[in-house]
Amino acid sequence: MASNSPISVNFFALVQEDLVRVEELMRSQADERQPDLNAALQHLLSSGGKRVRPAVALLSGRMLHGDWERLVTLSAAIELLHTATLVHDDLIDGSFLRRGIATLNSQWSPAATVLTGDYIFARAARLAAATDSVEVMRLFAETLATIVSGEITQLFSGRGNISRENYNQRIYAKTASMFELAAAAAALLSPVGPELVETMRGYGYSIGMAFQIVDDILDFTGEQATVGKPVASDLRQGLITLPALLYLNDFPDDRDMNQILDGNHIEEVVINRLISNIRESGAIHRALQEAERYVQRGLELLSVFPENSERQALEDLARYFVSRQF
Amino acid sequence: MASNSPISVNFFALVQEDLVRVEELMRSQADERQPDLNAALQHLLSSGGKRVRPAVALLSGRMLHGDWERLVTLSAAIELLHTATLVHDDLIDGSFLRRGIATLNSQWSPAATVLTGDYIFARAARLAAATDSVEVMRLFAETLATIVSGEITQLFSGRGNISRENYNQRIYAKTASMFELAAAAAALLSPVGPELVETMRGYGYSIGMAFQIVDDILDFTGEQATVGKPVASDLRQGLITLPALLYLNDFPDDRDMNQILDGNHIEEVVINRLISNIRESGAIHRALQEAERYVQRGLELLSVFPENSERQALEDLARYFVSRQF
Repeated sequence: MASNSPISVNFFALVQEDLVRVEELMRSQADERQPDLNAALQHLLSSGGKRVRPAVALLSGRMLHGDWERLVTLSAAIELLHTATLVHDDLIDGSFLRRGIATLNSQWSPAATVLTGDYIFARAARLAAATDSVEVMRLFAETLATIVSGEITQLFSGRGNISRENYNQRIYAKTASMFELAAAAAALLSPVGPELVETMRGYGYSIGMAFQIVDDILDFTGEQATVGKPVASDLRQGLITLPALLYLNDFPDDRDMNQILDGNHIEEVVINRLISNIRESGAIHRALQEAERYVQRGLELLSVFPENSERQALEDLARYFVSRQF
Repeated sequence: MASNSPISVNFFALVQEDLVRVEELMRSQADERQPDLNAALQHLLSSGGKRVRPAVALLSGRMLHGDWERLVTLSAAIELLHTATLVHDDLIDGSFLRRGIATLNSQWSPAATVLTGDYIFARAARLAAATDSVEVMRLFAETLATIVSGEITQLFSGRGNISRENYNQRIYAKTASMFELAAAAAALLSPVGPELVETMRGYGYSIGMAFQIVDDILDFTGEQATVGKPVASDLRQGLITLPALLYLNDFPDDRDMNQILDGNHIEEVVINRLISNIRESGAIHRALQEAERYVQRGLELLSVFPENSERQALEDLARYFVSRQF
């Protein structure tokens, strides 16, 4: 939990009790006749996610006077959708740890892991349907298609791609689409018209883009112990994120960088030199500036709403996205 | 296609044009920016499914004067849901052929196969949402949960289980639940009350149970060339279906059978002897009688509706389910 930051404490405090209910609802989704599945779900939900997506949905819905029960249901649906995609992601990447905790696929067969992900998808879809809104369901299904389509693109053609458009599409599919869903679906469950739904969609999009850019920055600047994976794990896999893109822009002839782009095997000493160079270049700072621009855009969109504690919390949350250290 | 049977020709004829539209709708679901995914979807949809689930939905909806556009959308959603579960199934089972055609996982990596299944789930969910009915969405999500939960049960505890209750649950989850969805969701999209929705649910359930029992019979009686897999492939994997269950009931001390139940490695000569014994016993006949009872129940449920060509077709379809040879 991001409990060290005073900002985060504020915005979580407002929906603390809601989040307890969301947690209960998620944990109750396992079929009780399936002890293995139940254990898997509890394990996954204990893996220390910050629940920022539910927080976005709950704060958005509270600000717009949405129906509480349906907002809680929506929040659980979104976090379970997120959880299901992580289960299949970890299987695909062959990751054995996430947030320092053993992944499902490190302990289970691929078959059991695929099916557990599918089961969590099914329960997420059921909760989405329980919001009783066809528009929410539609948005939900669209988001799932966007996420999966993005992963397929990455699988077939993502490595070594240095187009900025490709990067933007990738982080939209991977992260921003789900924040967009959280904010827009919460608005759909509230007594507001399509224009404000669109405003909230834009807010979710903006902070989601910022969130992923900061994730990509932290991949370079974080310590392995904090981030829970090797520094620059993306770059090591040939995946070019914003800091590397900006660095390449300044130094198009950098030999180390071009070796990676060529898909060559890179020695540890070379990758460490490149990481050092990127860290010390202006690329990190400019990537952060880009994230801050997205946050700024999110704050502007919020400014049409009356000032109240929920709006304040959504603003704090947006700022936290670029100030967080992990 | 079951074009040799005069019965099947009749019931398909009534919805032939609808099915063309369903086919188009399914094929249009791939993201055009994803040529690989698109190719995979076209391959999967060309694999010769009989489209019985869409036929059930379309005939049910036509009988009840449901909205045509939404029925077509529902039918495509159901067949894609079915397709997605097959993709993950084949991956889990490591099957390289389905209906004699190469499976996706025989040509693609597990990662690509998992994601393609996920993508088809997402598109199925989107089509289900496009029916504009929250009740249909809910039923859809419930069905997905039922199917996946059944697969998980089978994965963890299914082999060697000889309880009749377990068998019924298994074939419900695997097959009948989707026929139930097809008939009930079509009724939900039609101007009828909850009682008739329930009647149609019962019809779908009954013919679905019959369908799977006949599948399990054909696994014993079919020729490898027709069925496209080795005779008694379930039994070879230790999976006990109705013919074997009924045989075991008559011959609880059968040594070959008990070797399989004990999970021992079985020699080819032993399994062939057992298959012969089951084929020549009354078990096959009694399994077929059980399927016929389910069909009878389905026909009784239909009798509350006015006689018309759609009802006739639904009756023919039910009878076809127990008369089919493959």
